[in-house]
Amino acid sequence: MRFATLKDGSLDGRLVVVSHDGTRAAAVPHIAPCLLDALQRWDAVQPALQEVQDALDAGSAAGAIGFDPQACAAPLPRSPQWLDGSAFLNHGRLMEQAFNTPPIPDFDTVPVMYQGASDDFLGPHDDVPLPDEAHGIDFEGEYGVVCGAVPMGVSPEAALGCVRLVVQLNDWSLRALGPHEMKTGFGFLQAKPSTAFAPVAVTPDELGDAWQHGLVAMPLHVQWNGERFGEPDGREMNFHFGQLVAHAARTRRLSAGTIVGSGTVSNVARAAGSACIAERRVIEKIDEGAVRTGFMRFADRVRMQAMFPDGREGPFGAIEQRVVRG
Amino acid sequence: MRFATLKDGSLDGRLVVVSHDGTRAAAVPHIAPCLLDALQRWDAVQPALQEVQDALDAGSAAGAIGFDPQACAAPLPRSPQWLDGSAFLNHGRLMEQAFNTPPIPDFDTVPVMYQGASDDFLGPHDDVPLPDEAHGIDFEGEYGVVCGAVPMGVSPEAALGCVRLVVQLNDWSLRALGPHEMKTGFGFLQAKPSTAFAPVAVTPDELGDAWQHGLVAMPLHVQWNGERFGEPDGREMNFHFGQLVAHAARTRRLSAGTIVGSGTVSNVARAAGSACIAERRVIEKIDEGAVRTGFMRFADRVRMQAMFPDGREGPFGAIEQRVVRG
Repeated sequence: MRFATLKDGSLDGRLVVVSHDGTRAAAVPHIAPCLLDALQRWDAVQPALQEVQDALDAGSAAGAIGFDPQACAAPLPRSPQWLDGSAFLNHGRLMEQAFNTPPIPDFDTVPVMYQGASDDFLGPHDDVPLPDEAHGIDFEGEYGVVCGAVPMGVSPEAALGCVRLVVQLNDWSLRALGPHEMKTGFGFLQAKPSTAFAPVAVTPDELGDAWQHGLVAMPLHVQWNGERFGEPDGREMNFHFGQLVAHAARTRRLSAGTIVGSGTVSNVARAAGSACIAERRVIEKIDEGAVRTGFMRFADRVRMQAMFPDGREGPFGAIEQRVVRG
Repeated sequence: MRFATLKDGSLDGRLVVVSHDGTRAAAVPHIAPCLLDALQRWDAVQPALQEVQDALDAGSAAGAIGFDPQACAAPLPRSPQWLDGSAFLNHGRLMEQAFNTPPIPDFDTVPVMYQGASDDFLGPHDDVPLPDEAHGIDFEGEYGVVCGAVPMGVSPEAALGCVRLVVQLNDWSLRALGPHEMKTGFGFLQAKPSTAFAPVAVTPDELGDAWQHGLVAMPLHVQWNGERFGEPDGREMNFHFGQLVAHAARTRRLSAGTIVGSGTVSNVARAAGSACIAERRVIEKIDEGAVRTGFMRFADRVRMQAMFPDGREGPFGAIEQRVVRG
């Protein structure tokens, strides 16, 4: 199934089911007014939502409207928790060089993860208001999962069974503020303004063979101001999403609607390009001896869209955002 | 005004106004069903809430019930964000020695702060389910503030004007897990299970002279298994709450209902005792050459209650919790 959330002035927005061809949508207030509500009552509402999906795809859904990604909020405009891993070790190792930080202990056996703000996510076409270009404005293309309720102490395999939806996201970062916050040991806060999401959240079956035991084996195509930036593939993730969710739930239960992110998608092969500027910069330094690329400026744009391995557009839709002075 | 939230099976609970003598309460569904709703519409609902407070205190409120702290959830059972500072530098410096971590840069001029989970707070009498005594189970007695909407880039003085309520809290910590998470630079996650709150959240005027330009100048009396542990005073906080809120809002707006904490209350004078075990342990090491005190065991209890400087009980009520195997 495919879901999106239309902006309607409320904090949670209005849930719609989206047709597989991406052209039509149907609100389902009689089943669940918002996606968070659907996740809280998943087993009870899932059959009725599937009926709407089937009717939409058959062209017979009552009250169907045209689907407009521009009218979308994030699939969950607010969520109980937003926890972002760094599960592509290639990216993490490059970042250590980029920021000259000490090696993270047990980096290849224990996931690292930060707690982000989850109250104010950006929609796929929302402008990104930020205070200062000198903060090192950067995008980070990622995949993520949305969970049902997860008990404390869950195993990675059981955690994988708690995954309800897969999402595509842009974890906005301010690179000039990150190193100080890392050195405090208290983690990212000012360095991580509101995260943005692609319009459509999908059940894992929508990915077909590209959902590989908790990995999203799809290239994430990233463009900066209309120019190709990279298309790293999610299949090189070193911890699968069940491992990430289990890490998050080791000493706490997770509420339905919790989102867990992969960290920046990153591939070992240089030809794949990157999904964030900081990674490209450190690669330039390593391979060419000097950094050539600056961070984003006000009015810059970024576009991100996952593709299926066979070249078809992915189910999440595109993130297309512009940075503005906040 | 004084507010509490009764458990009613919903995620946000039921808002009640609490009488100044702490014996009676009145639900206000006709004004605001829950505290988060009241904070989102503060200016509109404040006069009506004040009328209920006045009627309660006069003994004339319709539908008043006895106030039972045991029936309370946290004043905000879930909130948009929970951001906890470390604004008592005495505590921070002792913790650096306790965990043998490098000095935090700019520690005395820039607040440090971590983003915590805000979806699943504990009530004042809730048991604390945790998986393992070996994790170094510790309490942390703190004060905090609840904000209205805060714009990005707010000044510390303007941020102080966004403070709507003051709260007392227990930031549960797992000390064996903290040092690793600090070394990752990604901050606390497994080391910080659900935070607990005293039953009553109060407007700053309820503190009288003890609200000193964003400081809570009240001793926080802490008992562990019925024995005195300390009563450090909030007046030694090195950053006031306006500074902490402004720090949190530097690159993001804050939604109404955001909670910002002080970090463990801590005083320079050893006679004050401590508000967490980790601090006592490092003081033992420094002053006596060896650590004598262990962390909490299952079935251990902690009690925390702020007092007015003149010895009267503070307005927040008490936190009384027991640790249990989760």
